[in-house]
Amino acid sequence: MNNTTLEEILDKHLPEPELREVKRILFGRELEPLKLPAWESDKKFEVQGWKLGGALAEQLRPPRIIRVGLIQNAIVLPTTEPVADQRDAIHKKIIGYIEHAAACGVNIVCMQEAWPMPFVFCTREKHPWCEFAEDAEHGPTTTLLSDIAERHNMVIISSILERDSNNGDTLWNTSVVIGADGKIIGKHRKNHIPRVADFNESTYYMEGNTGHPVFETRYGRIAINICYGRHHPQNWMMFGVNGAEIVFNPSATVGELSEPLWPIEARCAAIANNYFTCAINRVGTEIFPNAFTSGDGRSMHNNFGEFYGSSYVAAPDGIRTPGLSRNRDGLLVAELDLNLCRQAKDNWGFRMTQRLDMYAKELAEAVKPDFKPQIIRE
Amino acid sequence: MNNTTLEEILDKHLPEPELREVKRILFGRELEPLKLPAWESDKKFEVQGWKLGGALAEQLRPPRIIRVGLIQNAIVLPTTEPVADQRDAIHKKIIGYIEHAAACGVNIVCMQEAWPMPFVFCTREKHPWCEFAEDAEHGPTTTLLSDIAERHNMVIISSILERDSNNGDTLWNTSVVIGADGKIIGKHRKNHIPRVADFNESTYYMEGNTGHPVFETRYGRIAINICYGRHHPQNWMMFGVNGAEIVFNPSATVGELSEPLWPIEARCAAIANNYFTCAINRVGTEIFPNAFTSGDGRSMHNNFGEFYGSSYVAAPDGIRTPGLSRNRDGLLVAELDLNLCRQAKDNWGFRMTQRLDMYAKELAEAVKPDFKPQIIRE
Repeated sequence: MNNTTLEEILDKHLPEPELREVKRILFGRELEPLKLPAWESDKKFEVQGWKLGGALAEQLRPPRIIRVGLIQNAIVLPTTEPVADQRDAIHKKIIGYIEHAAACGVNIVCMQEAWPMPFVFCTREKHPWCEFAEDAEHGPTTTLLSDIAERHNMVIISSILERDSNNGDTLWNTSVVIGADGKIIGKHRKNHIPRVADFNESTYYMEGNTGHPVFETRYGRIAINICYGRHHPQNWMMFGVNGAEIVFNPSATVGELSEPLWPIEARCAAIANNYFTCAINRVGTEIFPNAFTSGDGRSMHNNFGEFYGSSYVAAPDGIRTPGLSRNRDGLLVAELDLNLCRQAKDNWGFRMTQRLDMYAKELAEAVKPDFKPQIIRE
Repeated sequence: MNNTTLEEILDKHLPEPELREVKRILFGRELEPLKLPAWESDKKFEVQGWKLGGALAEQLRPPRIIRVGLIQNAIVLPTTEPVADQRDAIHKKIIGYIEHAAACGVNIVCMQEAWPMPFVFCTREKHPWCEFAEDAEHGPTTTLLSDIAERHNMVIISSILERDSNNGDTLWNTSVVIGADGKIIGKHRKNHIPRVADFNESTYYMEGNTGHPVFETRYGRIAINICYGRHHPQNWMMFGVNGAEIVFNPSATVGELSEPLWPIEARCAAIANNYFTCAINRVGTEIFPNAFTSGDGRSMHNNFGEFYGSSYVAAPDGIRTPGLSRNRDGLLVAELDLNLCRQAKDNWGFRMTQRLDMYAKELAEAVKPDFKPQIIRE
């Protein structure tokens, strides 16, 4: 029960036409499923595919149809195993999933936040977890993926714990973008670092210093809003201002904290900025060797809670796909026509009515130490 | 069927515990209903009341518990009747609803956008519709409400078409805030004017010039994000930066255009800014005497589509109430502890991790005519 998805419950219990009406209100227009090659090796891996549709035929631009793939997964080995073994085991599993994404015709694939490691930050321990950090350009994860990206002509977005040995061995929470030729296009560092619940990430790394880059790949202009940046509409906005057509949101978040917020934020960003958003969350419960407390009066315990998966894609016109499973590894393939971004802008007019000049001025005032808020008293 | 709400369908068809699980994912924690006096006069008027809960007891601040009321309604007379008669009939009906809100213990009540008139802007006709415009401070609607506000010790938010005769007889889309002593606290003019579908409002009035005022009433700090401003996260943000604890979103929007977006945007704003949001939409289908086209190739017609009601309240921690009906007049009463705003900020940390200085700088660049977006090419 606790691992049944919303969509599964609705599909099972609602009669037509009530199911259709509920889905219209919850998700928007009906989506056509994609026919994808079967995954035989393991029943625990779910594959879903949807054609998002909605774009009109234009006279002066051909359709720009691409497929994105979202991969959500649990870790493989216990956290007590050697660091290298843990990472190798995850690498091996995910390479299989990426190969399957390639077989599904995926052009751009994105894994969850800090995918080659357990989400260790709840522990507040530096050792041995900092050993998972690796060089963004030449570390083992990037090296491995460069080869696969080139072999399959895929763009790969790989979110890692970065070790910046050129700058005092600092750590960053970083997404590396590898082009379809296997070369690194660039990287982005997480802009907003959480201070909530067991997300003790501010113990490990600082706010990112890479701005809001948009990566122009051969398949479209993409950006990455890493995890907690999802809660900040301004972060989403600047990727839009810089021209993103798809913004990926690799995440790691647990049920008790954020599950009712999950369907709202990335989808609202798709609406407000008229681009596609892809929200990806890990699955499973990760057990750590040393118990820790959570600042909430409960007794000490060895896990962070359950990562609830539920990865989904939202479109520039506000509709969304169903979510992946709450507890199984999965690949969500979405076929998009990027022309829908500009069409949705033309239709809704948000970009032109956005009054960025007004907000630039008001924010410039708001950040002054002697800022006086605009309050009118009774 | 087409007028059944999402909540009604779920309640009718889902067994426990599936219903509970679906509501947890869709709405967040379970809400306690309020016991409210019955409305006897008319079955077509729905009254719902919810206690939003969620706030902790503090040692140094007493709870700040208040009740807000959201009123959604259809117009009363056909649009072919004299302007004064149409307005009087709406006034009369809504006064009854406000009196009932007072009986329900409501402290702050808010009606839908342009409540004393049909939503005429689809027609693009100036005559006779501009006659509905009235003086914000001394017009018939404000005069009527001042008396009621004082009598019931209520704050009333009244959204009207404003005639600004001091400034060249200009029109504005304006919300007037009347204090519990019957005196006007101030007004706010709609910041973002739509250019979509039949929302031809830019034919009638311009973008507001009142900034992002927060009105400090005896019941809490409130602000108003009028209708289409709902699609602009920066509009919501600035009310938050200025200290709002409740932001009302008086709206008028139709099913075909926006219904799947409706549950997302005001709720996302509540989450991102850690304040309460109250989204109010009108109901019914309004028929106009002269047929018009809609810029979509369909033949001319005399109505704008169906306003789908579904008014709701969202809380600073992301949970929400059920929506009011899709097609009936209604009053939604929500009991709030305003202390939850600061508690949610302390918990999530969004305000402190918001990096407004970074966005002030980036926006200042973005609004320059020679702006170069941050694009990294393959």
